[in-house]
Amino acid sequence: MGKIITISREFGSGGRELGKRLADALGYDYYDKEIITHISNKVGLSEEYVSTLSEQGMSHYVINYGRSFYINPDQNKVMTAQHEFLRSVALKGNCVIVGRGANIILKDFNPLNIFVYASLESKLERCKLKANEEEKLTDKELIKRIKEIDKNRKNYFSLFFDYEWGDKRNYHLCINTSNVVIKDLIPSLKSFVENY
Amino acid sequence: MGKIITISREFGSGGRELGKRLADALGYDYYDKEIITHISNKVGLSEEYVSTLSEQGMSHYVINYGRSFYINPDQNKVMTAQHEFLRSVALKGNCVIVGRGANIILKDFNPLNIFVYASLESKLERCKLKANEEEKLTDKELIKRIKEIDKNRKNYFSLFFDYEWGDKRNYHLCINTSNVVIKDLIPSLKSFVENY
Repeated sequence: MGKIITISREFGSGGRELGKRLADALGYDYYDKEIITHISNKVGLSEEYVSTLSEQGMSHYVINYGRSFYINPDQNKVMTAQHEFLRSVALKGNCVIVGRGANIILKDFNPLNIFVYASLESKLERCKLKANEEEKLTDKELIKRIKEIDKNRKNYFSLFFDYEWGDKRNYHLCINTSNVVIKDLIPSLKSFVENY
Repeated sequence: MGKIITISREFGSGGRELGKRLADALGYDYYDKEIITHISNKVGLSEEYVSTLSEQGMSHYVINYGRSFYINPDQNKVMTAQHEFLRSVALKGNCVIVGRGANIILKDFNPLNIFVYASLESKLERCKLKANEEEKLTDKELIKRIKEIDKNRKNYFSLFFDYEWGDKRNYHLCINTSNVVIKDLIPSLKSFVENY
């Protein structure tokens, strides 16, 4: 069986770029948004909705009606499809998977888990560089968004997996990408994956 | 000016071996116990006492007499010598320094800061392999010692530097050495240092 690399990343840390470049350097398959597309087709829900359900927390899971609430059944459908798809990918081996709880869902496959993080200033810079013209946000709005997305990820992991997202003990390697050109990290990361 | 690599490490994580091997691979100077020997000679205190004062917390810093207490003056002597020596080493450049607050004391030199950690089981194994025959401790005693040493390090950094020891944000790279042969990590770490 080949190797499975999972990349968990703070929003704006460049983790997705790092994952893609690492997969290319290793000649591995790369999975990121493909996972959402697959699940979306499978369960017949929009990609945006699936994306939210597959990495976000309580507020999307539980729907409140005044004093009563019920568990959103779409969440379970998405979660089941997510597990199935990730396991089928893992069985093929030699892949890099970004996000979607792959590090936990595929625990039995002994993946190599990498966490990518950066300072808030650096994440803000990366987000500004990537923003489309039509979705220009102020720095304040962007910072709010960065914090919100990571808070949701943390909550999601805590709720569904009883797992502390971002705690270094849950990863083999944690990389700080503040003020770093992602491309420059790839040769050493490739070597790391090959020798760890 | 050359590069400065600092290694912070949990007790039993193999951080010292990693630092030594990395220095050898890079052809850099290596500083670890040499720092203690130098300070010991400089301030005229035993190496063991200097070692305790240079990386441990409150209990050695403040001496209690009933309700009154005073600040241990040796602590300040050691701290001054520690700063002076680390800065002289940094000015020469191209070095790997293990522990002793080098990542913070040399902050202005922009060192590359690496944190080495491992699971408790793995640290216990490493400690058992390294223990001298005459100091054989039970697993329970060893675990207590491992936890105590790291707790002291954490307290020391919090007290003297207002700094959270082990928080990934304070390092460029965090490496989990559980079940890993340290030697195998060196080529990728060397490449990481050269390209970061």
